[in-house]
Amino acid sequence: MSFIIRADAKSWIDVPADHHFPIQNLPFGVGCPTTHPECVCIRIGDQVLHLWTLLDAGLIPEEEFPMLCSFQDMDRGHMSDIRKIAYDLLRADNPLLRDNEALRDQAVTSIDNAEIQIPVLIGAYVDFYSGINHASNVGKMFRPDMPPLLPNYKELPVGYNGRASSVMVSGEPVRRPKGQTKDASAERPSFGPTKELDFELEMGFFTGRGNVLGEPVSIDDFTDYLLGFVLVNDWSARDMQRWEYQPLGPFLAKSFGTSISPWVVTLDALEPFRVAGPKQDPQPLEYLRAKENWHFNIELEVSIHTEKMSKPQVVAHTNAQELYWSFAQQFAHQGVNGTNIEPGDLYASGTISGTEPGSFGSLLELTWRGRDALVMEETGEKRTFLEDGDTVIMTGWCQGEGYRVGFGTVEGKVLAAV
Amino acid sequence: MSFIIRADAKSWIDVPADHHFPIQNLPFGVGCPTTHPECVCIRIGDQVLHLWTLLDAGLIPEEEFPMLCSFQDMDRGHMSDIRKIAYDLLRADNPLLRDNEALRDQAVTSIDNAEIQIPVLIGAYVDFYSGINHASNVGKMFRPDMPPLLPNYKELPVGYNGRASSVMVSGEPVRRPKGQTKDASAERPSFGPTKELDFELEMGFFTGRGNVLGEPVSIDDFTDYLLGFVLVNDWSARDMQRWEYQPLGPFLAKSFGTSISPWVVTLDALEPFRVAGPKQDPQPLEYLRAKENWHFNIELEVSIHTEKMSKPQVVAHTNAQELYWSFAQQFAHQGVNGTNIEPGDLYASGTISGTEPGSFGSLLELTWRGRDALVMEETGEKRTFLEDGDTVIMTGWCQGEGYRVGFGTVEGKVLAAV
Repeated sequence: MSFIIRADAKSWIDVPADHHFPIQNLPFGVGCPTTHPECVCIRIGDQVLHLWTLLDAGLIPEEEFPMLCSFQDMDRGHMSDIRKIAYDLLRADNPLLRDNEALRDQAVTSIDNAEIQIPVLIGAYVDFYSGINHASNVGKMFRPDMPPLLPNYKELPVGYNGRASSVMVSGEPVRRPKGQTKDASAERPSFGPTKELDFELEMGFFTGRGNVLGEPVSIDDFTDYLLGFVLVNDWSARDMQRWEYQPLGPFLAKSFGTSISPWVVTLDALEPFRVAGPKQDPQPLEYLRAKENWHFNIELEVSIHTEKMSKPQVVAHTNAQELYWSFAQQFAHQGVNGTNIEPGDLYASGTISGTEPGSFGSLLELTWRGRDALVMEETGEKRTFLEDGDTVIMTGWCQGEGYRVGFGTVEGKVLAAV
Repeated sequence: MSFIIRADAKSWIDVPADHHFPIQNLPFGVGCPTTHPECVCIRIGDQVLHLWTLLDAGLIPEEEFPMLCSFQDMDRGHMSDIRKIAYDLLRADNPLLRDNEALRDQAVTSIDNAEIQIPVLIGAYVDFYSGINHASNVGKMFRPDMPPLLPNYKELPVGYNGRASSVMVSGEPVRRPKGQTKDASAERPSFGPTKELDFELEMGFFTGRGNVLGEPVSIDDFTDYLLGFVLVNDWSARDMQRWEYQPLGPFLAKSFGTSISPWVVTLDALEPFRVAGPKQDPQPLEYLRAKENWHFNIELEVSIHTEKMSKPQVVAHTNAQELYWSFAQQFAHQGVNGTNIEPGDLYASGTISGTEPGSFGSLLELTWRGRDALVMEETGEKRTFLEDGDTVIMTGWCQGEGYRVGFGTVEGKVLAAV
C-alpha cells in the first residue's frame, strides 16, 4: 500500500526542480529547534515541518500516532500515513496550513534554524559487502594471484557486525584514529595515527520493527520491517585494517566512526525509482529470491573539500544499481538464522563502486592503493588518502521527470589525531 | 578503593562452603519476584536480597543511589558502596535485618521464586579471541601448513563485533539455526539446519560508563569502567562459519544466540584471585601494558546433559588463566582508536582452552573437528557436535580458603530448528 506522490504535484513551499526535497520526497528526520528538540520532523525544500506542532494543533490524530518522539517505534504504515497527512497539508491548493500564518510560522521553519540530530537511536549496525566492483577491486589489490571474488561472494551477501555507538549524523567531524599498523618490511607493528584514512560510499536502511529471537524472517516481509534509507560513509583506516583483519574481520579500522545522512527517505518516495538488479548467476538459494525489484536508480557522488579549496571537487560518481545484492537480500540473509532484528538497526550496503576509475567509492580504489594520487584541480593538492582538515561530502538522488528525490548529503571533516 | 570481604566473614544466611554465593561474593543481578521485577538485587546463597526493598525501608540512602532500576548506569563506586551496605546487613552479628522478621521476609526471598532477567541491557557485544590454546588449535585444524597463530596474534587482542540483540540470560533455550553451508565436495552451498552446533566457553565483562567519541581510553582507566564479570557461552555453527567467514569474519554462525550467566560478579569479590597472566613475548606495545594483574584464577567447567541422561557429565575443565590477553588489555585495545565505549557493553574473552584434550572449551577442539566423538558414560551416547535436546552447562568459581566466589552457571538447551 504505497503512497506515491505524483510527479506533477506542487507545494505552496517553493522548491527548485533540482532540489533533493520536493513534495515528492518528504523524508523524516529528528530536530525541532525549540520545544521538542528530539521529535520527528519532515523535510521539504529548505524548510522543516514540525510534526509535534501539527499534533498539538490537532492536524495529526494523537490517538493514532502517539510516538513522534520515538521514530524507530513507528512502522512503515505509520510513516506512510503521516507522510500522507504532511503531503495534504503541503499541497499548493490546500489553504489549511498555507493561509494560517500563526500556525505556519510555528509548524514550518527554516532548515538553518534546525538542530538536526541522528534520526534513529541505532541499536545495531551491520555492514554488508554487496558492492561487487568494490569487492572485486579489493580482491585484485590484496590477492593478485587468486580470482578477485571469493567462492562465497555470489552465494550470500557477505557482511559483518560493526560498531553502533560511533555512528554519527552528517556534520559531525571524524577524529583520525590511532592504532596498530605494520609495514611489510618492519619486524613489529608500531602505534600511531592512521596514515591511510579513507571513506566508503554506501547506502543504508533502517528497520522499524523486530522479530522474536529464533523465528527467522522471510524476504517477503522486508517491506514491513523497512523504515527507510540513508547515505552512509563508512570511514576506514586501511593500514590498521590490513594488520588486524585476519581471521575475524574488520574491527578498530572501522569502529572509530561511521557517518549517515540525517533524512530517512521512505520506500514510498523511492517507488518510482525501483529497478531490477544485475542478473545473479548462479541463481541465489530460495530464501534470497525476492518477488519484487529491490534495487534503486540512485545517482551517487563523492566530493572532497580540502581546507585550501573554495569549493568541493567531485572525485567519484556511481549509482546504487551497482550493488550485486539488494537491500531485501541483505535483510533476508541477516534474519534467516533466527537472530532478532530490532527497531533502529542500521544495515549498510558495503562500498558502491562502478566499473571505471572515476566511479569507485573509496580512495583505496580511486588511487589504486595510493599508487595514483588524485589531484585537486583548484589547488594542485594531491591526495592518496585523507589528510587532516579534509571534508568528505557524499550525496545521492533519484532523477524524476522534472523533480528529484534526494538524500541530501552526508558530510564529515577529518580532525587531527588526539 | 576495593572492598574485600574477609575469608572468615559469616552471614546469618547459611551458605555451604562449596556454594558459589557466600557473603564474600554478593554479585548483582536483576529480577525481583513481585513489585519491581526489573530492579537490581544481590545474590547470597540460595536467597535474593532485594535492593529496592532496602531503599524503601531507608536502609539504602535514596539520594545516593537513585538508579537501582538501571544497573548499567551505576559505576563501580556505586556498586562497591551498595555491596558494602548489603554486606553490613547480612553479617551474622548485625541484628538490623536479621531480627526484623517482617522486613526480612520482604527483602530476602528464595531464588526459587525469583524471575531472573538479563542483568544488563546490552548495547554492544564484542567478542575477543584471547584464548591462545583455542586460537592455536583452530589454526592447526584449518591451516595445517602454516604456523598455528597468525602474525598479529601476540601483538593485539584480535576481536570482532558480535550481535548484541541475541544475547540471552542463562536458562533460555537456543534454537538450532538454519543457514548456508557447503560441503567440500559440493559444487554449490545448501540451506538447512546447522549440523555442527557448538558451544564456546568464555568469560565476559560489562562496562558501566562511557567515554566521548574521539577520546581514547587508557588501560589505567579500566577499573573505573568495569562493572563486573559473567560466564559466556558463545554458541557457534561451525559449518556455517567455515563457509561465510572469509573475508569479513564470523556473522550468522554466531549471531543466532549467545548466553550469559545472570550474576555480575564484582572486581571487589575477585580481588583475592587476581594473578599474573602468562609471560607475553614480545612485550606488547605501551598502550597494552597494565600496571596491575588482570588475570584471575577461575576454575571453569563445561558439562553436557542429553535428554537421556539423569545428570550432566563434565566434558571440559580449564582455568581463566589460560587467556593470553587480559580483560584490561581487551578494554584498552577496544578503546584506543577513540570509539565510544558505553554503559552496558559486553566484552567476551574468546574461547578458553587449556593445553590438554580434556581442557578444551569447544566441541570443535574436544572432538578435533568431529574426528573423536565424546562418549556420555551413563548412556553410551556419542557427541561430535550438539544434538537437539542437549543442554550445555558452564560453570566457574574461584577457590578461597574455606569458601568459593563463583559465577553460578550459564545453561542452555538446544531446540530443534524451526
